[in-house]
Amino acid sequence: MAPAYPQLTTYLNEAGTDGYLINADGEDSNQYYLSGFRAMGNFVTLYVNGEVRLLVPDMAYARANTEGDGDSVRRFSEFDYGSKVLEHGPARAGPIVTTEFLAENDIDSVSVPASFPNGAADVLRAHGVNVVTDYDDTVGDIRALKTEVEIEHIRETQRANESAMAVAERMLERAAVESGVLHLDGEVLTSERVRRAIEVTLLEEGCALDECIVASGAEGATAHAVGTGPISAGDPVIVDIFPRNKESQYFGDVTRTFVKGEPDAKVREWYEVTREAYETALETIQPGVTGEAVNEAVCDVFEREGYPTLRTDEATEDGFTSATGHGVGLDVHEKPKLSWGGGELRPGHVVTVEPGLYEQGIGGVRLEDLVVVTETGYENLTDYSRELGVM
Amino acid sequence: MAPAYPQLTTYLNEAGTDGYLINADGEDSNQYYLSGFRAMGNFVTLYVNGEVRLLVPDMAYARANTEGDGDSVRRFSEFDYGSKVLEHGPARAGPIVTTEFLAENDIDSVSVPASFPNGAADVLRAHGVNVVTDYDDTVGDIRALKTEVEIEHIRETQRANESAMAVAERMLERAAVESGVLHLDGEVLTSERVRRAIEVTLLEEGCALDECIVASGAEGATAHAVGTGPISAGDPVIVDIFPRNKESQYFGDVTRTFVKGEPDAKVREWYEVTREAYETALETIQPGVTGEAVNEAVCDVFEREGYPTLRTDEATEDGFTSATGHGVGLDVHEKPKLSWGGGELRPGHVVTVEPGLYEQGIGGVRLEDLVVVTETGYENLTDYSRELGVM
Repeated sequence: MAPAYPQLTTYLNEAGTDGYLINADGEDSNQYYLSGFRAMGNFVTLYVNGEVRLLVPDMAYARANTEGDGDSVRRFSEFDYGSKVLEHGPARAGPIVTTEFLAENDIDSVSVPASFPNGAADVLRAHGVNVVTDYDDTVGDIRALKTEVEIEHIRETQRANESAMAVAERMLERAAVESGVLHLDGEVLTSERVRRAIEVTLLEEGCALDECIVASGAEGATAHAVGTGPISAGDPVIVDIFPRNKESQYFGDVTRTFVKGEPDAKVREWYEVTREAYETALETIQPGVTGEAVNEAVCDVFEREGYPTLRTDEATEDGFTSATGHGVGLDVHEKPKLSWGGGELRPGHVVTVEPGLYEQGIGGVRLEDLVVVTETGYENLTDYSRELGVM
Repeated sequence: MAPAYPQLTTYLNEAGTDGYLINADGEDSNQYYLSGFRAMGNFVTLYVNGEVRLLVPDMAYARANTEGDGDSVRRFSEFDYGSKVLEHGPARAGPIVTTEFLAENDIDSVSVPASFPNGAADVLRAHGVNVVTDYDDTVGDIRALKTEVEIEHIRETQRANESAMAVAERMLERAAVESGVLHLDGEVLTSERVRRAIEVTLLEEGCALDECIVASGAEGATAHAVGTGPISAGDPVIVDIFPRNKESQYFGDVTRTFVKGEPDAKVREWYEVTREAYETALETIQPGVTGEAVNEAVCDVFEREGYPTLRTDEATEDGFTSATGHGVGLDVHEKPKLSWGGGELRPGHVVTVEPGLYEQGIGGVRLEDLVVVTETGYENLTDYSRELGVM
């Protein structure tokens, strides 16, 4: 049985709708959170009267019953889905079945997330259902506040993350420099090789990841470039890893910066200022402080030291070109944000703190930890040296 | 520069809309297909006058320019995104920026996929944009017809898949039976161990996968159960692998069934009938034949041999409880379908053929290949023994 979500019930009362409806595939974290079920393909989750009621394709029915948290599970064939597909096509048949499912539950109006598919919303409206978009992502707000169990899951993923970071660091340590380029075990050491070692380590730890970042030199300054090719001595190497535990589905997130050989004075200075910004962020984090205020404090540090930020220039590609952090949980980017518009922090919020400095064509440095907001401040979920990794 | 898509232009002319608009994250295959760009987070792709025009968050701007296929790239900050976030909130700010982007492109009306976010559609409509849902998924139709290059990508993923299948088969072969349970290298052989070996093999081959199926005994009969725990002698083991190449982003898909020790006569019969259904499907596949007709031919075989199908009972959990196959490409499930309502096959369609028989509480068998429709019939992209793997 699914737990009741008083905050969601309150939201529905305020919105004046009968239920909260999600129609998404098993990758949608809001749906997984409410349903406890990750199907292949689309299914429907309805929250009404404190209950979670599922409507799933027949292929997913057995799993929905055994794995899901739904208080009840219906399946498409109970609503004559097959003939609806033939008459209306597959894209309309699911939403038409949904309207009958809603009618059965005495639902005339629903709140839906902003991501709710427009094709389904149009069909529901054509069948007289009032569809109201929840632009505030209420389920996302609920998800952002982690239970002890969820924090433990995130901690476990972060442990795997630290093991992977150690593997990357050891590869850089063990590498020899030949003509300015790193070599390991007789071959050029590339971003791809380091990434592969990280991936294998995480797999052994029960984690999966689509990608991770091992970006050296100029690539370190390109937001989200994963990094390619040989790693050069003296270049800062940004290693940013954000895997998901395959069992718990919770993410971790960590970044460190390494340099093989002697970094430029500029890189050392970047790191020093970044470290100061990082410390400032942590000192600022506590319940009642807004995510925006944390980010402002970080911008203050960078700007005081003469670096551009997105506050001084929304389009800058040099300086502090990101926000301070974001929530992490079932999504690698979720609420709350340590950024402009970021709301009040509360105990149980899990956020990254990831200041950095970048210069296009040159490179960048970043330091990222994952912390949980506590009653009195924060607890760092990350246990890894925070020095610039010069070796 | 992105290629022009005449079929999409024709669709827009028929729909009477000015452009085709996608607003999704980098995982959306239609958007990736048109834009050539996989961003973290949401961005916007507009197809108009034979051109692909992108609107991306500033963080994604550099990558959109270097990696994307867009004929032009604009970024959020050019439309005063920051202040719109503060005034309207993050969920409305993106769509509001999109309305200005559309106005700049002289667009009053757009076609959108059924999955287009309703929150954005509501904002666009409130700003006077006519939003028409494309329930036929026209971009999906275009994607379904693969070029030679795409077929080569799929072939490459399928090669990796065969390597992984061989690793799984060898583990089962090498296993010893003790008290009816498989043991390998001194430990009980579980579904999880086989799966881990498959995952590591695929990783080494440059592929990623969220999950794969190694389901033995009764679990083999539960649709999409990934399989857990010790593998018993005599039980059919369904191994279904569907990874994605991390470079090309194209999926492969293959299934084989193995038995360590002597299978029941029932399992042998299931496999024989399944193999006949498989051969029938392949003999049926050619241009002009519908996916529905292929599936009907497969159902004919199973029903003739006395097994229920979804045609005889939409809710059956025993017998042939799935459809015959589905398209594979940038998505693991895409058009065309070899199922009810499946349309005409055309050269370049890549589909699975995956008949199987299942009995709840007992188990199941499945045989799955991946084939491409050619001018004269089909070419099998899978090279792996099609016998029931008894060892």
